[in-house]
Amino acid sequence: MTQTSDYIRDGAEIYRNSFAIIRSEADLARFNGRAEKVAVRIIHASGMVEIAQDIVQSDDFADTAAEALQGGAPIFCDAQMVAHGVTRARLPANNDVICTLNDPTVPELAAKLGNTRSAAAVELWRPRLEGAVVAIGNAPTALFHLLDLIANGGPRPAAIIGVPVGFVGAAESKDALAAFGKVPFLIVRGRKGGSAMAAAAVNALASEKE
Amino acid sequence: MTQTSDYIRDGAEIYRNSFAIIRSEADLARFNGRAEKVAVRIIHASGMVEIAQDIVQSDDFADTAAEALQGGAPIFCDAQMVAHGVTRARLPANNDVICTLNDPTVPELAAKLGNTRSAAAVELWRPRLEGAVVAIGNAPTALFHLLDLIANGGPRPAAIIGVPVGFVGAAESKDALAAFGKVPFLIVRGRKGGSAMAAAAVNALASEKE
Repeated sequence: MTQTSDYIRDGAEIYRNSFAIIRSEADLARFNGRAEKVAVRIIHASGMVEIAQDIVQSDDFADTAAEALQGGAPIFCDAQMVAHGVTRARLPANNDVICTLNDPTVPELAAKLGNTRSAAAVELWRPRLEGAVVAIGNAPTALFHLLDLIANGGPRPAAIIGVPVGFVGAAESKDALAAFGKVPFLIVRGRKGGSAMAAAAVNALASEKE
Repeated sequence: MTQTSDYIRDGAEIYRNSFAIIRSEADLARFNGRAEKVAVRIIHASGMVEIAQDIVQSDDFADTAAEALQGGAPIFCDAQMVAHGVTRARLPANNDVICTLNDPTVPELAAKLGNTRSAAAVELWRPRLEGAVVAIGNAPTALFHLLDLIANGGPRPAAIIGVPVGFVGAAESKDALAAFGKVPFLIVRGRKGGSAMAAAAVNALASEKE
C-alpha cells in the first residue's frame, strides 16, 4: 500500500524521542527523582513544555504516592476518562482503579447534598479512601468536596493529584488543595489541567519504567 | 459539615458561567454556527482560550459531521479516553462509540504491519468506516494510518476530528490531514491536542444544547 507520509511507527522509539525532546526543552530544574518523572509525563500528555512552570508538588508527594501504590492502595478518579487513562500494566500491585461517578445512587445523593454529581461521587470513596491515591482531572467540585470531607474528620488519602480543568472553580480548588496542608499533593496552577494530566501523573508514579 | 471554601455547586450554572467566560475572552470571529460551538467546547475542555487560534475546521466539517451523527453514524475513537469522554446522553441516534485498541487481534496485527497498536486498531474500523465520524485524540500513527488507508481506496469517513497530542508526529499528522483534501476535518495545529479535545468536539456536534 502506498503511504502519504513517512513517520515513526515504533511505539518505544516514539516514547524515547518524546521524552528526549521534553527534557531538552522544558525547565525541570525544580524537580528531582520521581517528581521529575511525574512532570515529564504531564508535559508529555499535554504537549506543552511550558506547563512545567505551573506544576506544584509538595516535597513528600511523589515518594508517598508511589509507595502507597506499591503497597496496593486503590486509585480513586473523579472521571471515567481519568480511570481509562491509567495504564493497568504499569500498576505495581494490580491496584484497583475506581470511578464512582456512574454509580446509580449518585444523582439522588447529589440532590440531597446540593452539589454536583462529581462531588457526590466522592462520598462513595469513604470506605477505602484512607491511604488511597486520588486523581482528580475534571471537576473542581469533586476536589472542593474532598477537602471538606477530610477537614471534617473523614478518611485521609495518602496523596492527592488535583488537576481539574476549566474556567469556574478550577484554579481556586487547586489553590485550596495547595494551602490545605494535610495531604501530600500535586497541582497544576490555573485553568489548565485535565484527565490526561491526572492519568499521566498516576502512570509516572506507578512504575520507574519510562 | 463545615466547608473549606465557598464555590458554585450547581452543574448547569458552572456550564453557563464557563461558556460565558469563554465567549467573553476568546477570539471566535473565524467560527460560525456549529463550528463556533465546537470551538467553545474545545476551549472548555482544555482551559485555554488561546487554543482558538490553532483550531482549523474545513468549511464543511461541522455540518457534515453533525448530520452524520444525526443519521446514526458510528464514532470511531483511537483511545479509550476519547470514547469515555463522549457523553452518551447527547448522542442524537444512540450512536455506537467504538474503540478497537484493546481488541485481542491488535498486537499481532501491529507486528505484521510494522506499526503501533493504535495504527493497527484503525484497520478494524474498515467494515463500518464509510460515513462514520472519526475522533483521534491520542496517536499520530492512528491518524497517519487512517489517511493512508483512505488514500489507498479504503472506506471514507464523513468527517475526521484529528487532534492527537505530543512531540513526535502529532503536528505533522494534523498538517497531513488538513492538506489531505478528501474528508471534512478539524485539527488543532501544533503539539497540543488530546482525548478531552477530541471528545469535546464530538459532544458539541452531537447536540445543539449547551
